[in-house]
Amino acid sequence: MVSKASDKPAIARLVAICHSHGLKRVLVSPGSRNAPLSLSFTEHGGFDVKVIPDERAAGFMALGMSQVDHVPTILLCTSGSAVLNYAPAVAEAFYQRIPLLVISADRPNEWVDQLEGQTMMQKGVLSNFVNKEFDLPQEPKDDVTLRYHDRLVNEAIAACFYPVLAPVHLNVHLREPLYGLSEMKEMPYVIQVHESPAALPCEKLIKELSEELNSYSKVMLLMGLHSPDEALKKVLEGLIEKGWVLLNESSSNLQGEKVISCIDRSLGALPAEAEMDFQPELIISFAGPLVSKKIKQRFRKNPPKAHWHIDAHQAHIDMFQCQTRALRFEPFEILKALNKVMVRGDGNFSAAWMNLKQKSAQRHERFVELCPWSDMRAYSEIFKNLKGEYKVQMANSAAVRYAQLYEHEHLEFYGNRGVSGIDGCSSTAVGMAHESDSPVVLLTGDMAFRYDVNAFWTKEIPSGLKCIVVNNGGGGIFRIIPGPKESGHLEDLFEAAMENSAKRVAEISGMPYLSAKNAEELNTALNTLFSDDKSMILEVFTPREENEKVLAKYFEALKK
Amino acid sequence: MVSKASDKPAIARLVAICHSHGLKRVLVSPGSRNAPLSLSFTEHGGFDVKVIPDERAAGFMALGMSQVDHVPTILLCTSGSAVLNYAPAVAEAFYQRIPLLVISADRPNEWVDQLEGQTMMQKGVLSNFVNKEFDLPQEPKDDVTLRYHDRLVNEAIAACFYPVLAPVHLNVHLREPLYGLSEMKEMPYVIQVHESPAALPCEKLIKELSEELNSYSKVMLLMGLHSPDEALKKVLEGLIEKGWVLLNESSSNLQGEKVISCIDRSLGALPAEAEMDFQPELIISFAGPLVSKKIKQRFRKNPPKAHWHIDAHQAHIDMFQCQTRALRFEPFEILKALNKVMVRGDGNFSAAWMNLKQKSAQRHERFVELCPWSDMRAYSEIFKNLKGEYKVQMANSAAVRYAQLYEHEHLEFYGNRGVSGIDGCSSTAVGMAHESDSPVVLLTGDMAFRYDVNAFWTKEIPSGLKCIVVNNGGGGIFRIIPGPKESGHLEDLFEAAMENSAKRVAEISGMPYLSAKNAEELNTALNTLFSDDKSMILEVFTPREENEKVLAKYFEALKK
Repeated sequence: MVSKASDKPAIARLVAICHSHGLKRVLVSPGSRNAPLSLSFTEHGGFDVKVIPDERAAGFMALGMSQVDHVPTILLCTSGSAVLNYAPAVAEAFYQRIPLLVISADRPNEWVDQLEGQTMMQKGVLSNFVNKEFDLPQEPKDDVTLRYHDRLVNEAIAACFYPVLAPVHLNVHLREPLYGLSEMKEMPYVIQVHESPAALPCEKLIKELSEELNSYSKVMLLMGLHSPDEALKKVLEGLIEKGWVLLNESSSNLQGEKVISCIDRSLGALPAEAEMDFQPELIISFAGPLVSKKIKQRFRKNPPKAHWHIDAHQAHIDMFQCQTRALRFEPFEILKALNKVMVRGDGNFSAAWMNLKQKSAQRHERFVELCPWSDMRAYSEIFKNLKGEYKVQMANSAAVRYAQLYEHEHLEFYGNRGVSGIDGCSSTAVGMAHESDSPVVLLTGDMAFRYDVNAFWTKEIPSGLKCIVVNNGGGGIFRIIPGPKESGHLEDLFEAAMENSAKRVAEISGMPYLSAKNAEELNTALNTLFSDDKSMILEVFTPREENEKVLAKYFEALKK
Repeated sequence: MVSKASDKPAIARLVAICHSHGLKRVLVSPGSRNAPLSLSFTEHGGFDVKVIPDERAAGFMALGMSQVDHVPTILLCTSGSAVLNYAPAVAEAFYQRIPLLVISADRPNEWVDQLEGQTMMQKGVLSNFVNKEFDLPQEPKDDVTLRYHDRLVNEAIAACFYPVLAPVHLNVHLREPLYGLSEMKEMPYVIQVHESPAALPCEKLIKELSEELNSYSKVMLLMGLHSPDEALKKVLEGLIEKGWVLLNESSSNLQGEKVISCIDRSLGALPAEAEMDFQPELIISFAGPLVSKKIKQRFRKNPPKAHWHIDAHQAHIDMFQCQTRALRFEPFEILKALNKVMVRGDGNFSAAWMNLKQKSAQRHERFVELCPWSDMRAYSEIFKNLKGEYKVQMANSAAVRYAQLYEHEHLEFYGNRGVSGIDGCSSTAVGMAHESDSPVVLLTGDMAFRYDVNAFWTKEIPSGLKCIVVNNGGGGIFRIIPGPKESGHLEDLFEAAMENSAKRVAEISGMPYLSAKNAEELNTALNTLFSDDKSMILEVFTPREENEKVLAKYFEALKK
């Protein structure tokens, strides 16, 4: 049976997603603005729709219904004060921990607070008494926004159950005409959510996941920011052993022979003619943000069949706009359980990636040995000299990006990659050096170092802090990312090149200062830097206009 | 060593609580308004205090420090824009899941937005990037407010760890003078928090709890609103077997021979000369809100030595202002674990309560048999006739209060006790009747029934809905709670007595209507009401001015 739904695509999808998640009851309070929704819920055929004119009574009726089975009842009202009449029941449900899904129709954004009838600021009106609230994008039509819309609807339904059972509010802006219907053509994106109150995955879920898992032979694990974790490392090594491929970054703090830790370097060596050999069917992502833009672009363009994200708190991370499961667990717990039930993956797939890793590593070595003086060369010399068990703080953004091209299993990597600002990279390193038993190496650029000059405005600079400032005479990052150069304002608006030596910072901080202008000087200076426990600043001058050329050549060299 | 602290008692306590929870690092950015705090942290002796003039740098330093051990670092700044400079580091910490405790000093509330210097609206400035934020009560001095203040500080520190590691913001309003110090005299209240990422209590914790537990011989379990739960019931019965006493209410949906489900009735029979035989050393509370005011008043006046509250989400429920532990677990899980390790309690204590339960039940029976026509008598006849496995919706507030005096193990009890409004009691019953397999009995009063008249404004009234409206000619509740009667405005402002028959509601809803004006008529009507599955309204008229007298006599009769 083909069911009809509103001709507004987002509305039809919203209704289908509600049905997919097992919501079945809708209490509609009649109105005109909510017609696209009330028509769609009714035409769908899979809902028990009741019409209750008084929203206050409807709210409490929904409460009584959901008290029986703890499944959210949908409340649907028109725009204006209607939604406010839900408030008493929503508050009561919140304190009783009963889930409800409140959907209020709203006038178009452009007419809110513009003296229109039945129009008021509806956003946030229930905020004290909901787990979460969502003001959905207004009548999305393009794919990216529709997908974003669908993710929010999936997230809203999941939010009825986490962290406790409670109401959730969806506010939906709608333009006229409101009454058009059409056949439901394509299915919306449904993100399955799985969680367990005991935070441990149950047998039934593991069975369901393993059935899907074992239908794929090419599985990729993708890991972002994470602190060192031996137990997790062991589980991941077990999965790699069985044929899964693990891609991560220096800030994942988990490297090894069989881990692809240099994502951009490996992708750089990927042969265009055999691209599909490297395409996973399933990506399982976990941990914090990723530095690599290339990996995100790649899979946004060529999405895998399925994407699961694992996080015990916020599992709706639709990184490639193709997420199929949100697994609300500790990664360690669920990956351990999956390891027990999964069959061996496609050996060719993992072999292709291992081969790629080795090839890119060889090409990398070959290039940096012969590389002219530049940022690239400087970082290469620096990493060669980081022999101790150091903690490395990578500043934004050039330092952290260059650092991704090197592998160093004995180092711990940190970087302010939560929001990726340049505002406090030095201060973070100072704080860490105060508390750390091992030396802290700050890898930074001249802009970030000057920005955070007050990191050193303190009576007590900790020992063991090794600041390495790569001074490329401005925001070198803007030369290596696409956009600024083409804008015609690279130098004045982006690089902000100014005479800006770290020497001045060294002077006001009272720290010893070293400098280097070529590879030989750099090696000597690094020797001095790590000769004792003293905190020091080492400034490395690189040629501003050469850096980008060398980097471009590097990525050329990775290809063959 | 006696340490000094600010002569503002709340500040000294805030600092001591931070220390009790293991916080040890403070980064102070100097200022005058935060002097009481910076002086107290420094004079305390248990903190590593560093002075960092630039708040932005301090924020990132704190991030670097807490990256090492995942223990929150305290950031302390003065009033005005100072706290805004923390924002970049707080955002970064939020997305890296690093805990920080931001304490901003603020000017007195009365001078905010009054054109004062270094004064701005500080409340909520970090709200996008914190787990929780607290605007502490301004310079509390009385015990109740100090205790409230201490609870919030305890809760704030716990919030650095839940639901994920993240920053928390405490805003502290301070009046001049700011520099006074005095000796720290009394210890603040410290609420220990316990939680486990796996939601299962670990062995170490169980050991710690059992050691404390086994130092008490008088333990009381206090249970509020809860849906029926056989597994939990079994665990609780095990604990009762070992000598613990369980007090709960009809809406706890867990009755039994050895459960004190009628709290007010039992307390009513408690002999004044032997009060202390009934006093617990430890109260363990769990589940939702409690109806009984008497139990709260009792233990607020005579607090036990210790109070633990168990809840997997919000465990800081300081019901008697003497909470000692917040146990962030599912009650079932932790009570099951405790049952395994606890030794037998004081037999005399549980025997005293069992005896009290029996005595009060006998006195209750004796009274209601001879009781003149009144609300009391009406509810007694009603409960005698509720023989099936019904779901009972108790309206606010007279119905839910009378219902607490009766025991009925075979019934399921529900009531809108989350916020306890009269606004939707009938609608909730209608909603439940739509979904329930068994009949739903609505016990309500004339006011609540009229208020929610639109519960029946629907095409489809579900079957099996039995509405019993006890019409005592107004808000009878205001005659039985202390206050309104003494105000001189009982009738005009509180009871709002009006001719208000449920017959009119029956007419516009189209439901059959029955009525009763005495015990005999009531019994006949109840027979008809439950003779089939039809939905019906039964209105029971009671004498407005007699009800309170009968209830007063009832509580007299319980005493002997």
